Amino acid sequence: MSAVRYELIKTCKQSGARLGRLHTPHGVIETPIFMPVGTQATVKSMTPEELKEIGSQIILSNTYHLYMRPGHDLVKEAGGLHKFMNWDKPILTDSGGFQVFSLGPLRKITEEGVNFRSHIDGSKHFISPEKAMEIQNALGSDIMMAFDECAPYPADRDYVKKSLERTTRWLHRCKEAHKNTENQALFGIIQGGMYKDLREQSAKEILELDLPGYAVGGLSVGEPKDLMYEVLDYTVPLMPENKPRYLMGVGSPDDLLEGVIRGIDMFDCVLPTRIARNGTAMTSEGKVVVRNAKYARDFSPLDPECDCYCCKNYTRGYIRHLVKANEILASRLITTHNLHFLLKLMEQVREAIREDRLLDFKDEFFKKYGYEL
Amino acid sequence: MSAVRYELIKTCKQSGARLGRLHTPHGVIETPIFMPVGTQATVKSMTPEELKEIGSQIILSNTYHLYMRPGHDLVKEAGGLHKFMNWDKPILTDSGGFQVFSLGPLRKITEEGVNFRSHIDGSKHFISPEKAMEIQNALGSDIMMAFDECAPYPADRDYVKKSLERTTRWLHRCKEAHKNTENQALFGIIQGGMYKDLREQSAKEILELDLPGYAVGGLSVGEPKDLMYEVLDYTVPLMPENKPRYLMGVGSPDDLLEGVIRGIDMFDCVLPTRIARNGTAMTSEGKVVVRNAKYARDFSPLDPECDCYCCKNYTRGYIRHLVKANEILASRLITTHNLHFLLKLMEQVREAIREDRLLDFKDEFFKKYGYEL
Repeated sequence: MSAVRYELIKTCKQSGARLGRLHTPHGVIETPIFMPVGTQATVKSMTPEELKEIGSQIILSNTYHLYMRPGHDLVKEAGGLHKFMNWDKPILTDSGGFQVFSLGPLRKITEEGVNFRSHIDGSKHFISPEKAMEIQNALGSDIMMAFDECAPYPADRDYVKKSLERTTRWLHRCKEAHKNTENQALFGIIQGGMYKDLREQSAKEILELDLPGYAVGGLSVGEPKDLMYEVLDYTVPLMPENKPRYLMGVGSPDDLLEGVIRGIDMFDCVLPTRIARNGTAMTSEGKVVVRNAKYARDFSPLDPECDCYCCKNYTRGYIRHLVKANEILASRLITTHNLHFLLKLMEQVREAIREDRLLDFKDEFFKKYGYEL
Repeated sequence: MSAVRYELIKTCKQSGARLGRLHTPHGVIETPIFMPVGTQATVKSMTPEELKEIGSQIILSNTYHLYMRPGHDLVKEAGGLHKFMNWDKPILTDSGGFQVFSLGPLRKITEEGVNFRSHIDGSKHFISPEKAMEIQNALGSDIMMAFDECAPYPADRDYVKKSLERTTRWLHRCKEAHKNTENQALFGIIQGGMYKDLREQSAKEILELDLPGYAVGGLSVGEPKDLMYEVLDYTVPLMPENKPRYLMGVGSPDDLLEGVIRGIDMFDCVLPTRIARNGTAMTSEGKVVVRNAKYARDFSPLDPECDCYCCKNYTRGYIRHLVKANEILASRLITTHNLHFLLKLMEQVREAIREDRLLDFKDEFFKKYGYEL
């Protein structure tokens, strides 16, 4: 039996979006869900208790970063990633592939794996599918991602085809190397860039491995949003109904809604936490760059419709002061708000699916929020 | 009637230390007490709720910094400093004098006040005793400090004498300019450097104003610890029994204990919060530089005898990882612990005074902690 099991509760009659539950070794997740990113075994500026308070059900952590520092062996010695970071709910780890490929001139891809130099000290390293599994087995995440290549955008058809075929071969090696199927579920990643036939080829090859979950990779890499939605339009229907579907690296409100409507169950993105640290909030009225001078004497909450800790207790004027003064509390307050905003949005999305009115909800939401194009 | 009133509960029969209560417009403070420093209207990395949870009864904020940014008029418009920063317990503000004098070549002292340039944008400013009162009246702190000159160490006798006499003249102007005696108490500051007769002269002049509280200034400015204790030995007995006594800028455990034993009631220092952000903890066994490599695989708490949030939930190995990875949570956890450590120490000190055994407590404490010299 797989470590992770997806239960489809219902499909929204208005939109086709899915309401479900994902059963994992560290508890049940209500889907669709957004996963806050805790790159270095911490969601930047937040404690685990605070993450739970705002409704985080699962977090993502980065294999590449933890392999580099403090090292997966150390995390294993500490009792695994959950214990190391004091988080007892589910964790999904990526494979490190995306980060390694992002190193550009510092890395070299072969059939065997990827040679690269550390972004910290320049030391030489090699990650293969087997190594990615070894690291994630040591970390003990509930969901492990396959070691794949996320092709860049734009990329020519030949390159994308060769790349997705290697990703399939690597997935076989991942499945073979994965040592802890009872407690950790391996998800496969469908690649194929912006080419319909290549997405079909990748899906066909990947699905053959009968894994407990699947992701759509290679999107949100710089392509126009319409193109991303188009790829989802023809890729998601290729994925099995009884398995969770994860769209990697997506986290703006419009992308979340468009993804859910196309049948996606899981999302992650650094957007809400990253823009928080630059002094930008996501609010019911759209983005608020609280760093701006016009908020200096604005003593209203960051988001007047929000009931998070930040909005209940602090004003835009105070938060702007903290941002300008480089105070840590600024990052804390805006991160709390932004994550709460997205998690609450997903809660509203689940409610709307339950009541077969997700398209109505989407229209209402964007009337106030506006689309980010 | 004064905004602040000191109530002496008892004197320790073993040490002479005082146990008391300070009644303020924002509540009662048990003394002796350590005051965490919230320079820019925030105790770095902490929320007000967290400060209360670890036992903070009062915080200090810096007039110079708030005058520069966001401006005292803005804070007043926000409803005062308490409301601006969401802290409903007492606040003490310094006068800005210490920060302005620390600007070195950027400032010029005259009888009228101090001309200086901003450390932020180089703009020209002038703070006089009247201006320092205007700023603190706008901030609305419970305790306002007089605008004084903290003479450097070493300083020759002539300079210190001239300086303390100007501080006395400035204190008269402060008292005259203070507009809100009903809700804010002005404390005078005894100067006189390391000269016994000058401390006597300053005390005599300052006490004549019959203020609700007094501070010992000009200590912890680089002089040997023994010299500081010696100055306290002859200065504190000059101060009235029925008023609170505040030793400015002191916060190492040994200085706190030696100060309390000499009759001091209030302390403040950036030490616990500053060293926290550099990865150093104060523990029952002395300082732990958790940044050091030897703690990488140490999965015990920062302080095995501590019951704070940090020590109950995280290991030295995890905290070291956060420090090395420049994660905000590192500052949060160590700051929480360090402040809890000092606030708990003061609680133990109050208990020991109540039971007439403060000298015994001091010996026990330092047997494990060791003196910092």
